[in-house]
Amino acid sequence: MQTRMAAAGLDRYVSFNPDNIYYLTNFANMVHERPFVLVIPRSGRPQFVVPQLEIPHVKTRAIGDIEVVSYFEFPAPAGLAWSDRFKELFEAGERVGVESICPLQIYMEIPGERVCVDIVDDVRMIKSAYEIGRHVYACGLATDAHNALLAEARPGLGMAETSAKLRGMIMSRLLADDPSINPTATRIIAVFQPGSVSHDPHNFTDIDMRMAEGGPHVSVVNAVMNGTGAEVERTFFIGHVPDAARQTFDVMMEARRIAFETAVPGELLSEVDRRVNDHFRRAGMGDRLLHRAGHGMGVTAHEAPFFADGYERPIEKGMCLTIEPGLYIDGVGGFRHSDTVLIGDTGPIALTGGPTELDALTFPVRS
Amino acid sequence: MQTRMAAAGLDRYVSFNPDNIYYLTNFANMVHERPFVLVIPRSGRPQFVVPQLEIPHVKTRAIGDIEVVSYFEFPAPAGLAWSDRFKELFEAGERVGVESICPLQIYMEIPGERVCVDIVDDVRMIKSAYEIGRHVYACGLATDAHNALLAEARPGLGMAETSAKLRGMIMSRLLADDPSINPTATRIIAVFQPGSVSHDPHNFTDIDMRMAEGGPHVSVVNAVMNGTGAEVERTFFIGHVPDAARQTFDVMMEARRIAFETAVPGELLSEVDRRVNDHFRRAGMGDRLLHRAGHGMGVTAHEAPFFADGYERPIEKGMCLTIEPGLYIDGVGGFRHSDTVLIGDTGPIALTGGPTELDALTFPVRS
Repeated sequence: MQTRMAAAGLDRYVSFNPDNIYYLTNFANMVHERPFVLVIPRSGRPQFVVPQLEIPHVKTRAIGDIEVVSYFEFPAPAGLAWSDRFKELFEAGERVGVESICPLQIYMEIPGERVCVDIVDDVRMIKSAYEIGRHVYACGLATDAHNALLAEARPGLGMAETSAKLRGMIMSRLLADDPSINPTATRIIAVFQPGSVSHDPHNFTDIDMRMAEGGPHVSVVNAVMNGTGAEVERTFFIGHVPDAARQTFDVMMEARRIAFETAVPGELLSEVDRRVNDHFRRAGMGDRLLHRAGHGMGVTAHEAPFFADGYERPIEKGMCLTIEPGLYIDGVGGFRHSDTVLIGDTGPIALTGGPTELDALTFPVRS
Repeated sequence: MQTRMAAAGLDRYVSFNPDNIYYLTNFANMVHERPFVLVIPRSGRPQFVVPQLEIPHVKTRAIGDIEVVSYFEFPAPAGLAWSDRFKELFEAGERVGVESICPLQIYMEIPGERVCVDIVDDVRMIKSAYEIGRHVYACGLATDAHNALLAEARPGLGMAETSAKLRGMIMSRLLADDPSINPTATRIIAVFQPGSVSHDPHNFTDIDMRMAEGGPHVSVVNAVMNGTGAEVERTFFIGHVPDAARQTFDVMMEARRIAFETAVPGELLSEVDRRVNDHFRRAGMGDRLLHRAGHGMGVTAHEAPFFADGYERPIEKGMCLTIEPGLYIDGVGGFRHSDTVLIGDTGPIALTGGPTELDALTFPVRS
């Protein structure tokens, strides 16, 4: 972090993004209107401006040598505001790095020359050995929960019930493995869509929707487990595969193969998306796309980098992303498998798993 | 909204805050990296820049005459980005209002003369008759859940279990009353702290903490129910009231009386906090404060306006806030009741309820 700051000619860096602050300090902020701002000098220890009320939690969770600088309350009388304490941390004429997510109300209080640059976000993209171990763990747990969802698939199974059960399963396992996990850094989504809505992949308007014969259903486990993201998703059927779905499933599977093949170190992240989309267009499905081929994983379950056309940045060893090319056809349904992969020396290593082929994802009608 | 824009000499207003967008459109965004930006002209209909993927949900939930302007994906190749569609919505030389919460990456794409002003936040502070009805409903439900928590109070009762039960109770009632409620605009916190940690009011590090004989325990129900906030909290005891707690409880109760008495239309919001704090100082407890006397309620359960020293703005009829002066003594515990109140013609009207006196909040040792 400080090496990159020096390379960018910065005297200080201001981090406001709670995910970046969690990454740097292990303190997960339950975001509200009282500002938490981390100020990182080019050398020496970071200073963390926090409301007095939160000092005990910062001290409970924060790791590393951090100086806590507190203010009493927000709003506050003149001279006692967070910004009064904050401004004291700078010297005259400094060059200060600021995140692109920084809110105006924080930005306006930063003295010196302000430079918009996302250094923490860049550092977050390449996982350390410790982080890789945590992703392997989280992805294993996500896979187990997702397999449990598939094992229960049957007509009439309701989403609210399934979701509560799987979330309970993941939370229980997390707590059994580590009673000190941080609930503020834990968010679990475990849901599915039946064939009637899966063409609209973010549609969870009806939380009581139910599985039905046929498909394509799409299952989703996307979770941040104690500050580590994991995602696994599958397209599945119950009883039979509608004729209109077979060909599209195959086109999606070929896109997935292309994405896995293209996602090697040195290639551009954008190239994965472009090759997938070229394949979709060749198959006459260029207008069935709704999203890029994948997104990064880290202290959240949805972040940079992206397998996205226009994201012209090389793939690097140690990146962790989803591979999830998808097709969406109104009246037929949605087609998407997602796995979380780690970029290794020669290509992606899947950290999540589960059946991928049509036969293995067509379940008998259980009751 | 548009009247206030005209008064501020603005041609257009850019809203990014998801709570403001929900307030204006009824669409609750599950925030992620794809930008959702609402652009409001001085006259005519608002334009809502959204990712193509989300159009069906915007159309399902949004109310009113809004033009949807979509972009394909984020990130995107040059010419196809969200910002390309966004910039087309402005004419040359306009004066554009921007929220203080606006992230730099959005701010930097806004053409014309940018003025930082929080008009939507200001409008949100005064509730309409419809909003008041919804707050009355949400506060009634919060009170019922909170009373259920008090009714179960007994040594050994665990927080995780109680929390799951009360959240289930609230969610079931919400769904029974309105099956179309929006889960994205619903967040329920129902917790408590035993006497061993209640001096540290945001400490929920141990999610399995349990009630114990004595106290002070502090119970918390804070929820956004289908886009409407409610909060109720009580200080309670089991079996006996430790001697060291009695006097502090009384000092807190007097602060609460002062706050209710001071919170009349025309008085300053800050004055409520100042009078409460003066009372605490006179009682020799000026160093036992950790927070202001209350915060606003609206489409969230924690927002402006604030009963806070330094927040020099008049109290107005139709504001909805919590009244919750608190005291925190290491080794003794936390002392805080919170009720959600609506400011009426002559003072605050409590929308939540429950016992307030020490006798009624000292429960027998049940098993």
